[in-house]
Amino acid sequence: MVRNLILIFLSIVFLGCQESSDNKIAIVIHGGAGTIVKENITPELERSYFLKLEEAIRVGYEILKNGGSSKEAVEKTIHVMENSPLFNAGHGAVLTSDGTAELDASFMDGETLDAGAIAGVKNIKNPISAAIAVMEKSPYVLLSSNGAEQFASEVGLEIVPNSYFITERRKTQLKAIQNKNEVSFYDPYIKDSKYGTVGCVALDVNGNISAGTSTGGRSNKKWGRLGDVPIIGAGTYANNECCGISATGWGEFFIRNVVAYDIAALVNYKKLNIKEASKLALEKVKDLGGDGGVIVLDKNGDVSMDFNTAGMYRAYINNEGELTVKIYND
Amino acid sequence: MVRNLILIFLSIVFLGCQESSDNKIAIVIHGGAGTIVKENITPELERSYFLKLEEAIRVGYEILKNGGSSKEAVEKTIHVMENSPLFNAGHGAVLTSDGTAELDASFMDGETLDAGAIAGVKNIKNPISAAIAVMEKSPYVLLSSNGAEQFASEVGLEIVPNSYFITERRKTQLKAIQNKNEVSFYDPYIKDSKYGTVGCVALDVNGNISAGTSTGGRSNKKWGRLGDVPIIGAGTYANNECCGISATGWGEFFIRNVVAYDIAALVNYKKLNIKEASKLALEKVKDLGGDGGVIVLDKNGDVSMDFNTAGMYRAYINNEGELTVKIYND
Repeated sequence: MVRNLILIFLSIVFLGCQESSDNKIAIVIHGGAGTIVKENITPELERSYFLKLEEAIRVGYEILKNGGSSKEAVEKTIHVMENSPLFNAGHGAVLTSDGTAELDASFMDGETLDAGAIAGVKNIKNPISAAIAVMEKSPYVLLSSNGAEQFASEVGLEIVPNSYFITERRKTQLKAIQNKNEVSFYDPYIKDSKYGTVGCVALDVNGNISAGTSTGGRSNKKWGRLGDVPIIGAGTYANNECCGISATGWGEFFIRNVVAYDIAALVNYKKLNIKEASKLALEKVKDLGGDGGVIVLDKNGDVSMDFNTAGMYRAYINNEGELTVKIYND
Repeated sequence: MVRNLILIFLSIVFLGCQESSDNKIAIVIHGGAGTIVKENITPELERSYFLKLEEAIRVGYEILKNGGSSKEAVEKTIHVMENSPLFNAGHGAVLTSDGTAELDASFMDGETLDAGAIAGVKNIKNPISAAIAVMEKSPYVLLSSNGAEQFASEVGLEIVPNSYFITERRKTQLKAIQNKNEVSFYDPYIKDSKYGTVGCVALDVNGNISAGTSTGGRSNKKWGRLGDVPIIGAGTYANNECCGISATGWGEFFIRNVVAYDIAALVNYKKLNIKEASKLALEKVKDLGGDGGVIVLDKNGDVSMDFNTAGMYRAYINNEGELTVKIYND
């Protein structure tokens, strides 16, 4: 009887400790960086971006608030952006020189350091889910091209015709770029030259950090070009001991600088905070001639959203549930 | 007249300084790591490996000794190994589950931090040259699959039928693996389960470090699997300020640990020497359940050839022209 009372007492103390332990949750997203300035964007389009960024991040935050995993929060948040034509990922992705959409995505689990990625796929509706499936249902980390499509089909992911991804806006954009013979990302609707990519990093109640990134790459790309997005360490990285990172920018420079892992290494090895590390990593990108942005979330729930372009579509919700959505350099 | 004499005097002093300046050159290669133990290899096959490793590294060293670039040394050295059926790269590469050869390669220039890579190609005779061509002749870093083939063809690289890469030894190997339903690299000729990949890092007389890696990946691989080799930061990295790295091992673990760049970060940020950094990076691979090896060459010409498998085909030539060739853990 006394023993039982002691056990009940200890249980109450233990549960009390759990309750009072300050397990922070937080989530941060980006929807691409570039020369995004207020005078070049209509109020209606600006409003669409603000609303969609808020919708996306609230989906992930609700999952975290209800005790869900950072993996699920990242996946479901990115689905909203992949399914929206506003961003260069999934439906509304930019087009290759052949007029098709070729998508890349990656995901990393900061608890296990497990990761998955797909590169150059044309028929998987939600590339971020395929990246997670590679991690969970194959012995591999990175699958490419037709083989990745076959894998996605075998594990039961939704397959769509390539035309699902293609919008009139991107066809106009491709034509404009091809007339100028450029390989870039110029959006005639908002006079915006930018790097469209979507990404999300989340910290769940168990202290697990996940990061994911999804993109259509660069307009008018050819020769099976892959950027930094499907590359763990370049476009995506997560480690519970440190932080999670998702990048958007001129992919080639992010590969050469191993940007996502460099930020983690600067935090882990040089003891910089995530804002200092992001700044330094982006300076190194600029030194080589590139630009872009990064979102970082550390194990304490602190957030950094840095970029060396004119603007970056971005949002975060902190531990108090406070939402911030921004587009311009403000 | 006096001015001319002064110029001649200054020139002699300048040339003398150049002569006496201690510009070190060095080169290191690997030909894969694995359970390579003396009792499982015939004396003839052992001799073939020793001779081919020596032949390959002497090609690169001669280039360096004659003032050639580390880029050329790495390319030509890797050609010797790609063209030999002894290694899992180029001719003699392992086969996918479909019985074809699918090759990956990457190259990085430590002076400019420029890089190039190709992934999942089936018809480019020397993948390392295609990686270098991507760096020099495209605005991209990483090209994949059919697009990469098309690029290689457009820039005039040698194209061969896929059958060029396929040897009887690898067909037997694939059959043995498929009978066991395994995805691995088991060499029945030397009872050797290993990670075949070739790599080279060189330091030239101008202090430029280059690194390159080339592979057929893993036997029986499917779904367009890509490993660490085409990934800058995972399988290959070079930076004159620090060192050059080429990895061989269970690629998935090398991607998740961003091994090549992690070694550079440990040297740059934590001030470890290359041997300490290699050891720590391989321990982190082992902690996750993987294994393999790395070769590292720093800006002083110091070399590290570390592995946590039973053996690794490897060789180096130091600044004094002294050759070391090793296979086992000795």
